[in-house]
Amino acid sequence: MKLTAEQLEHFHKEGYIFIPEAFTAEEIEVLREAAKDVFEPEREEIWREKSGVPRTAFACHTYNKACEILGKHPRLVEPVAQAFEEPVYMHQFKINAKAAFAGDVWQWHQDFVTWHNDDGMPEPRAMNIAVFLDDVLPINGPLMLVPRSHESGAIDAGHDTETTAYPLWTLDNDTVARLVEQGGIVAPTGKAGGLLMFHGNLVHGSAGNITPYPRKIVYLTLSAVSNAITKPTRAEYIAHTDFTPIEALPDDALVQYARSRSQEPAAATA
Amino acid sequence: MKLTAEQLEHFHKEGYIFIPEAFTAEEIEVLREAAKDVFEPEREEIWREKSGVPRTAFACHTYNKACEILGKHPRLVEPVAQAFEEPVYMHQFKINAKAAFAGDVWQWHQDFVTWHNDDGMPEPRAMNIAVFLDDVLPINGPLMLVPRSHESGAIDAGHDTETTAYPLWTLDNDTVARLVEQGGIVAPTGKAGGLLMFHGNLVHGSAGNITPYPRKIVYLTLSAVSNAITKPTRAEYIAHTDFTPIEALPDDALVQYARSRSQEPAAATA
Repeated sequence: MKLTAEQLEHFHKEGYIFIPEAFTAEEIEVLREAAKDVFEPEREEIWREKSGVPRTAFACHTYNKACEILGKHPRLVEPVAQAFEEPVYMHQFKINAKAAFAGDVWQWHQDFVTWHNDDGMPEPRAMNIAVFLDDVLPINGPLMLVPRSHESGAIDAGHDTETTAYPLWTLDNDTVARLVEQGGIVAPTGKAGGLLMFHGNLVHGSAGNITPYPRKIVYLTLSAVSNAITKPTRAEYIAHTDFTPIEALPDDALVQYARSRSQEPAAATA
Repeated sequence: MKLTAEQLEHFHKEGYIFIPEAFTAEEIEVLREAAKDVFEPEREEIWREKSGVPRTAFACHTYNKACEILGKHPRLVEPVAQAFEEPVYMHQFKINAKAAFAGDVWQWHQDFVTWHNDDGMPEPRAMNIAVFLDDVLPINGPLMLVPRSHESGAIDAGHDTETTAYPLWTLDNDTVARLVEQGGIVAPTGKAGGLLMFHGNLVHGSAGNITPYPRKIVYLTLSAVSNAITKPTRAEYIAHTDFTPIEALPDDALVQYARSRSQEPAAATA
């Protein structure tokens, strides 16, 4: 999937692009089942909130078939390659759970600062592209973005190892207030299947979730192949060191997989 | 101010009524200045989040003139007296700050359970009526209500003394999930000046606020005079024991006060 010239212009100007219902209900269903399987067992790649509920499942594309397919999906890989004008590799793959009743905060931050400080990523030529696995509502901790904040480049950050179970380079309140004064806050919401791509320097965060509605989102962090990380300090399952360019699968790859699992005759799905 | 028959029916059926922009910008301005004065000093009636920012200012109607006027305002006193069909006294008066960046959660709860358990209130013939002092947005921790949950009566609750700095009788997740399944969640949002009245048994809560936008709300807890508390265990500034029926002031009382403060000639404000 290629972005239109208009979408690409919006992305460069605002720092993000949101495409509602980019994935169909059938595609989302197979991904939701995958997420259920992924979060079931105890594994070192699954990090938990202080309360014990799952926060993040890293690298499940390495052991779950539907996630593997999503990691090569053209609707995710192609827009990012298009924005960077070169092929991309997988820097990180994760599902953030934002569990019902207990999903915790992600403080305001820029992703690239963490990739740079912790992984030795040279340039902000990587970014997150995310798929909503649940309906994202105003009340279940939607991702909040500060439009145009990517224009500020990488901003000095403090290493927050206290607020949540996930260490993060976060911004101070005065900086966030100043950027919000300029750009406001947007919180894209919508049905499961929505697609959100945002610049590595775009300031974002999310509040906790006390509702009974979980809010799972899959994040692919895709990096330009020219932008390999140089000094990873985090586990391989958090910051991958396989810089092979991703070859995108056909657009119907997830649908084909879903139908093959439901054991319909191959002819009916062709 | 009296509720219309339609509004009263909505209240009895859904457990709440929301009236946008019930107070004017001029009235809200004087209340916002009052809130600023109130939260300034250190006082025992001002409770703080674990982070130190203000959470709640109790009983400021006893020492701040604008708050005193609001505590007798006909747009607050009359609708509650109308719903109970008798005069009301002030059980509690507070401003909840939900401060920018650091406003913490209020877990799901029913107010009457706390009033009953901690103050010895006989019946759910008391309720909160609230005025928005800031714009309430989907993203700055709006109050979330579970419509029709008041029909369940008082539900068994656990005493949560851990989550926040304010001890509260809170509901378990299964109960909340079941009630939300039936009634959904509404989160009234809108400009400063909005008015929200909700039944003492209506289940409600609010998420934290990580945005730069504070979300202050004044809450009057008004009780039917026949429903005096019988065994207060909390401080007088939290659970008042003066059961005098409130006599409502004229509808323009706040405006008159605002204008008298700005030292305009009395004749111009008559």
